[in-house]
Amino acid sequence: MTRVAAVHRVATRHPGDVSGLAALLDGGLDPAGIVAILGKTEGNGCVNDFTRAYAVQALSVMLSGRLATTPEDVTARIAMVMSGGTEGGLSPHFLIVSVADTQAPPTGALAIGTAFTRDFAPEEIGRTAQVHATAEAVRAAIAEAAIDDVHYVQVKCPLLTSERIAEAEARGATVATHDTYHSMGLSRGASALGVALALGEVAVVSDGAIGTDTSLFSGCASASAGVELTRNEIVVFGNSAAWAGELTIAHAVMRDGIDLSAIHAALRDAGLDPGAGQLAPDQAARLVALLAKAEPSTTGRIRGLRHIMNDDSDINATRHARALVGGVAAAAVGRTDLFISGGAEHQGPDGGGPVAVIARKAS
Amino acid sequence: MTRVAAVHRVATRHPGDVSGLAALLDGGLDPAGIVAILGKTEGNGCVNDFTRAYAVQALSVMLSGRLATTPEDVTARIAMVMSGGTEGGLSPHFLIVSVADTQAPPTGALAIGTAFTRDFAPEEIGRTAQVHATAEAVRAAIAEAAIDDVHYVQVKCPLLTSERIAEAEARGATVATHDTYHSMGLSRGASALGVALALGEVAVVSDGAIGTDTSLFSGCASASAGVELTRNEIVVFGNSAAWAGELTIAHAVMRDGIDLSAIHAALRDAGLDPGAGQLAPDQAARLVALLAKAEPSTTGRIRGLRHIMNDDSDINATRHARALVGGVAAAAVGRTDLFISGGAEHQGPDGGGPVAVIARKAS
Amino acid sequence: MTRVAAVHRVATRHPGDVSGLAALLDGGLDPAGIVAILGKTEGNGCVNDFTRAYAVQALSVMLSGRLATTPEDVTARIAMVMSGGTEGGLSPHFLIVSVADTQAPPTGALAIGTAFTRDFAPEEIGRTAQVHATAEAVRAAIAEAAIDDVHYVQVKCPLLTSERIAEAEARGATVATHDTYHSMGLSRGASALGVALALGEVAVVSDGAIGTDTSLFSGCASASAGVELTRNEIVVFGNSAAWAGELTIAHAVMRDGIDLSAIHAALRDAGLDPGAGQLAPDQAARLVALLAKAEPSTTGRIRGLRHIMNDDSDINATRHARALVGGVAAAAVGRTDLFISGGAEHQGPDGGGPVAVIARKAS
Amino acid sequence: MTRVAAVHRVATRHPGDVSGLAALLDGGLDPAGIVAILGKTEGNGCVNDFTRAYAVQALSVMLSGRLATTPEDVTARIAMVMSGGTEGGLSPHFLIVSVADTQAPPTGALAIGTAFTRDFAPEEIGRTAQVHATAEAVRAAIAEAAIDDVHYVQVKCPLLTSERIAEAEARGATVATHDTYHSMGLSRGASALGVALALGEVAVVSDGAIGTDTSLFSGCASASAGVELTRNEIVVFGNSAAWAGELTIAHAVMRDGIDLSAIHAALRDAGLDPGAGQLAPDQAARLVALLAKAEPSTTGRIRGLRHIMNDDSDINATRHARALVGGVAAAAVGRTDLFISGGAEHQGPDGGGPVAVIARKAS
Repeated sequence: MTRVAAVHRVATRHPGDVSGLAALLDGGLDPAGIVAILGKTEGNGCVNDFTRAYAVQALSVMLSGRLATTPEDVTARIAMVMSGGTEGGLSPHFLIVSVADTQAPPTGALAIGTAFTRDFAPEEIGRTAQVHATAEAVRAAIAEAAIDDVHYVQVKCPLLTSERIAEAEARGATVATHDTYHSMGLSRGASALGVALALGEVAVVSDGAIGTDTSLFSGCASASAGVELTRNEIVVFGNSAAWAGELTIAHAVMRDGIDLSAIHAALRDAGLDPGAGQLAPDQAARLVALLAKAEPSTTGRIRGLRHIMNDDSDINATRHARALVGGVAAAAVGRTDLFISGGAEHQGPDGGGPVAVIARKAS
Repeated sequence: MTRVAAVHRVATRHPGDVSGLAALLDGGLDPAGIVAILGKTEGNGCVNDFTRAYAVQALSVMLSGRLATTPEDVTARIAMVMSGGTEGGLSPHFLIVSVADTQAPPTGALAIGTAFTRDFAPEEIGRTAQVHATAEAVRAAIAEAAIDDVHYVQVKCPLLTSERIAEAEARGATVATHDTYHSMGLSRGASALGVALALGEVAVVSDGAIGTDTSLFSGCASASAGVELTRNEIVVFGNSAAWAGELTIAHAVMRDGIDLSAIHAALRDAGLDPGAGQLAPDQAARLVALLAKAEPSTTGRIRGLRHIMNDDSDINATRHARALVGGVAAAAVGRTDLFISGGAEHQGPDGGGPVAVIARKAS
Repeated sequence: MTRVAAVHRVATRHPGDVSGLAALLDGGLDPAGIVAILGKTEGNGCVNDFTRAYAVQALSVMLSGRLATTPEDVTARIAMVMSGGTEGGLSPHFLIVSVADTQAPPTGALAIGTAFTRDFAPEEIGRTAQVHATAEAVRAAIAEAAIDDVHYVQVKCPLLTSERIAEAEARGATVATHDTYHSMGLSRGASALGVALALGEVAVVSDGAIGTDTSLFSGCASASAGVELTRNEIVVFGNSAAWAGELTIAHAVMRDGIDLSAIHAALRDAGLDPGAGQLAPDQAARLVALLAKAEPSTTGRIRGLRHIMNDDSDINATRHARALVGGVAAAAVGRTDLFISGGAEHQGPDGGGPVAVIARKAS
Repeated sequence: MTRVAAVHRVATRHPGDVSGLAALLDGGLDPAGIVAILGKTEGNGCVNDFTRAYAVQALSVMLSGRLATTPEDVTARIAMVMSGGTEGGLSPHFLIVSVADTQAPPTGALAIGTAFTRDFAPEEIGRTAQVHATAEAVRAAIAEAAIDDVHYVQVKCPLLTSERIAEAEARGATVATHDTYHSMGLSRGASALGVALALGEVAVVSDGAIGTDTSLFSGCASASAGVELTRNEIVVFGNSAAWAGELTIAHAVMRDGIDLSAIHAALRDAGLDPGAGQLAPDQAARLVALLAKAEPSTTGRIRGLRHIMNDDSDINATRHARALVGGVAAAAVGRTDLFISGGAEHQGPDGGGPVAVIARKAS
């Protein structure tokens, strides 16, 4: 039996709009085959962005009906990664990632591997324990899916809360930070470094490097922290000779927020031709997903010119960064339903980030 | 005697930073030759954006010392057009536009023409009286500067205030709107239609079409409303066989916010080669200014995909639009100090806008 | 059989937090007795505030389990009025309003009456048809609950959407406005005037007065527009000699946003003593709910001094207004879990609004 | 010769509006007598609030004409303390503080003392060196003005910039923080503790306590950090038997953001009667200035109820805090032109802050 991966992109009219997914299921998509749902929701992508939880609740309530189980079981089974913030012209949407068996022979195609780490103790979050467990899970997912070349690793990771910190300290343990917001960055960073370790992008990681040494990074990792879990959930996207299907994936690393040529490289590697700069409509129709990380450079500059992202107290810096990278990516592909996500600690170089492209192969 | 136009771009560290202009003057730029200063300041670009007035005050106080006159006289003499909002990766800067005489023979180059309308009565603002007076002034500026082909017309125009409305109504006159914020859009729209009339882009304009008929627009106009004036101030940028210098200008019209090919067309017409998509560093160094208008499409869509600009009560729609177009333009040119301005009534099609490029000719 | 009304206030940790209500139900509250849930959620209270829908979804999913029905049926049965925006120091919470039968004799107490209008055609929204239907429903609710004196009328009302407008115009009907956001204000205003008509606060209402004549208002109405309904849902709060229970209600009208004496008057009428200005802790413990409407004065002034609410393009004017009135009300009562809501068309005078107090009677 | 202090409050129409001060000078106020100008400007009060610098520029340019000197000399001579943020209903205004000589006998009245510390090395900022130098300057100002009881001490203090940090480190010195934004808080905190030391509110301060030990605070200090200075500038407000005039000052400490009784205490001590809660108009007319510090409690709670200030990524926490305290103070005094300022490190207890009242004595 050969495996085949599918990625469906559905537009949403609001964060709780599950009508697009419902239509897919009505049209025959097997809900049991869904392994992950990535979503761009129209919140601020920061602390008080409740559009993410709203979307997850709407999706899990709806799917619980289709799967005849509870909403809690749905979220335990399917990795739901909601990225808030559709600044600039970005268009809210869900990416439904599913796997099915097929009688077709393996032809080489997009392959999806998933894995989970064990639950972390609070004192492990943002530290090498999380790094190594993540690396192990990434390796397991790669092996399980027989992935030949990895292009994008989505990690959902936990964070520290006041309760978790208190529990650890009651046992005499010390945590990486007492700042719960900061713990999100450390957890994302440790997760990304775990990916980097598994992929051989870095050789060794120390506690002190996490969150500080920007020279260490993965060019494939995209990490997102959520309060609802205590383990890392990993979805590896790559190509495998053992899978069938019409999809393929490629990636590149943007060195800064306006690195159009990196996006072009990823498009070309995925079989799309940006031609004179922007995909023609027939090529754009074959683009299934563009996934990129965006962050403001800590230097306050892009190619020597000042940006104001880090000094703006009205609009969070990550919102500016998503708007910028969203504009650059839309320039390349001629469409705006792109998965541009913020919070890129150890995910690409300072001010840059990974960009992955999933495309339908030319027929 | 031949005329030569210069455009100097200076970065600012904050809206009141005039050190870049001071350095230019110290280096020999004649303050008496300055005809316009266009600036991107890091405010919100909306009603309570005081970075614009702060920059104008700082510039006029400084220049009053250099010109041995009052700050008020400086602003009467030099058109200062501050555009607030450097969303995404945009970099705050001033564009110092000056004209000088030269002994060199005319070689054909960028030419600058300026003109002012008469003062408008409040009841004329946002109506055909403003349209026709603007058209007349644009024609006068073109003639005065012997411009052969017009590529960009910057208009600074007045708005209605409660005082001005009351004054008109005391005389029995009626004004176009009682909403002072809305009057800014009507004044910009009437000004843009005046440019369109002068350039033959539209044949006839009625009061009813101003602010409503989006099929009428200029592909060269950029209008900005300010409370401090009661007339229209016009700066026409074009090429003239009668001028000398190393600069040239071109323009195109973006049909939507992600129209990379329009930007490429303007770049090529100005002698710059975007190659595979983005100007190489040597080409980017020859880009003196990119000026574009940005606005959210009223349809709520970009190429069929929903955007959230018009429904966002945290970030004004024009801020999203500038971030998007700024990202697309930066993708094309590889730099972020671009004059992307909002409020594009009758300045390009719905959701799109004019883009002009001033470049140093290849040596 | 005598009726008794209960109002339970539960704090929320986030908009989807239903644990407080769950605890009440676990403690014996009959879910079938719940007639309304009013909530303050921590969104922006404006167009893209999804915390309201998120809260409604979470509440209706949870209650559907307790009531053995569908979430849709829950929202059809229970009026859920979510008011977004907890600016300043306001504390997010739900108010659970329920009615039960008791064997106790009627002693005079808080009474709750509910009623619904028929569904409105789009062309009726924001017009006298909506006014009169609302007035009729208010009268019916008063009669049904045998309310002697009305103090607070919560109305949930529909709004115009593009689809509804198109449907009406396909039939040759004309709607009150094509601006869907503006239709929210017109619908709230028409609803409030319906309350005013029922209570004898105004004698007659014309289409032209809705949304324009600020001299017409109700001192008891609080209206909220939602896209999910096509009829008006009405909850009338008052006192009735025919009811029993430990609660009572009173109200007053704030003439501007800093009208502390109006709040004091409502507190005193509800049997609470603000003493030297702020309720002492024992009195504050007897305060069950304070419900008030807040809005910026259209004059741009409060007692002659300029406010900046209407000119702030970073923070919506209604957010400033809620913060202000929340601060003034907290000064009076010494607690911050107050139901301060924005959008006060025809609900109190310009810049002011009704304030109602539900209190536990002194034992 | 006896000294007499005056405080004039002038409304502003925008941050650069100096017409109110100009009218005072035209009316006879001696510009040479002005020792300080405190202003509320309508910016965000955070990093990119340029309304403060704009106001200072406008004031110093105007005063330089009246004083026949340079704008730089004006700012060296007059302490200009601009506090950004007029959230809720707060009204933008300037407080012009001046001192004059009079032939009248001393009657006891408001007295103003000013002093400056030496310039600080970068490594002294936010440390005990700054604390002790501030304490010394406060003592000097008190002595110079013969103040008997101190009620409000305004401190303007420097901050660390990247340049200053580099300069210090080039000498082998270490600075208190590398985070320039954080240095503002440390500098304010050290300044406030210097006031506390001078007034005997704390006995001893260690480097480690600055910014961390919230039990140490001054009930009179109000500190504001600015990039333009390298020393501390101190203005002490108190009462002195040796001064004449119609003004008096008092203060109290708010224990949280809704501490109405503390505001009432300060009003009463200044001779104003809040009566049933809010100053009657005749009393409000005698209120010359109310100056208070506002900050969100670090516990996330006010009297046990959750607030959302610290978790809001759309509106900065300090903006919520000013809106809240502004509402509470307006409830007490019935007017909105109040000097409510944020950033209250060691200025009152956690979540609370000092409140001072300057009033005209009853005639």
